[in-house]
Amino acid sequence: MRVVDAGVAEPVEHPDLIDRRIGPGTANSAQGPAMTEEQLAQALEAGAALGTDGDADAVLYGEMGIGNTSAAALVAHKITGISLADLTGRGTGLDDQGVAHKTRVLSRASDRTATPLPPMQALREYGGFEIAMMAGAMQAAARAGRLVLVDGFIAGAAALAVLEDAPELRGAMVFCHGSAEQGHAAMMAHLKVAPLLELGLRLGEGTGALLAWPLVRSAAAMLNEMASFEDAGVSGKL
Amino acid sequence: MRVVDAGVAEPVEHPDLIDRRIGPGTANSAQGPAMTEEQLAQALEAGAALGTDGDADAVLYGEMGIGNTSAAALVAHKITGISLADLTGRGTGLDDQGVAHKTRVLSRASDRTATPLPPMQALREYGGFEIAMMAGAMQAAARAGRLVLVDGFIAGAAALAVLEDAPELRGAMVFCHGSAEQGHAAMMAHLKVAPLLELGLRLGEGTGALLAWPLVRSAAAMLNEMASFEDAGVSGKL
Repeated sequence: MRVVDAGVAEPVEHPDLIDRRIGPGTANSAQGPAMTEEQLAQALEAGAALGTDGDADAVLYGEMGIGNTSAAALVAHKITGISLADLTGRGTGLDDQGVAHKTRVLSRASDRTATPLPPMQALREYGGFEIAMMAGAMQAAARAGRLVLVDGFIAGAAALAVLEDAPELRGAMVFCHGSAEQGHAAMMAHLKVAPLLELGLRLGEGTGALLAWPLVRSAAAMLNEMASFEDAGVSGKL
Repeated sequence: MRVVDAGVAEPVEHPDLIDRRIGPGTANSAQGPAMTEEQLAQALEAGAALGTDGDADAVLYGEMGIGNTSAAALVAHKITGISLADLTGRGTGLDDQGVAHKTRVLSRASDRTATPLPPMQALREYGGFEIAMMAGAMQAAARAGRLVLVDGFIAGAAALAVLEDAPELRGAMVFCHGSAEQGHAAMMAHLKVAPLLELGLRLGEGTGALLAWPLVRSAAAMLNEMASFEDAGVSGKL
């Protein structure tokens, strides 16, 4: 496991932390674009380098970010046109009133620009650095022939941006779990995807992808190593 | 993994095969009880010994048996009263005509006795030796405080027999996957259970239980080892 700082507000020093900071958080997307063109390009490139680094056959991306269900909802809204009411959820635990407030704030942010937007523009206007970096990593990893295990709502927004631009990469992605975060189901329906697991998680941090990893390994083993009824002569006459 | 011969038609010699043969297959349950009282007791006892053997914390039971979706459908029908039409499926690959024929044969077998029957009588009248032995193993393992991972349709019929008699053992059982075999969904609905996995398998041999095993281990690790937001001070003020 590797932990990347894509741009938390306060820099953290730790020997195992990979510093790919684009800045101390994005700009406020309710007032203007979250990122400059240059920052987006930098995040996508840093992601692409991470996504093709080493010799892994499969990659799993998780995230931790404050407020990133908001960014993910806006990115998904701008890419798919699904309503913000359907995409805005409780995040780490808002009550009904909190969700209503969040939806109003996101609607104001959304009103700044047209809907839909091209996926890369949606990322620039509303993404977090971690979402853009995951999108860059997923795209590059998938193009490099790696299997991309997609976690829940936030990683799903990154995958959505990638697939809207490059639908041919769909086969490289496994959607691992259906998040309890409102909006993930709508996102999955848009992609015509049934996630492997439905466990009511709203965790992030790649937990859903990790839980699905043994299933993916089992599927690969079944395809590569399991005898068929024919191989094993099970259906032959006694 | 241990493989038990509960009573296949032709005895097999293999150093790793555990011989608990009750007989060379059961009697034809369309004509009379599948087992004698003595055979049922013998199967349950052999199962109980296997289910409490060694020092495992968790046990997973799978099965291989020719025609055992028929036996499982009859057992489930007699225990729950769910119609045979809802419980009879394609098994290893019957077409619609085959399923219709199977349903007619099972209905004749069912007509021999009242519906519902007490679970142990249902096992005796219609069970296979492997179903009765699994029921004995599950019951004893659960009573011994072991976690019982329940596979698909056939193992589900065994679990149904156990829980109808001893509903207090419900908490010891994890229902691992929703089988594609027609009738499993009805069985799970009767138990008010949502299986962990829905992957469209119709495999048996414990495959669905094995696929769920990493999830169960992850759940145990989460309960025992994971820091909560509170422990980690995540929600504290900056």
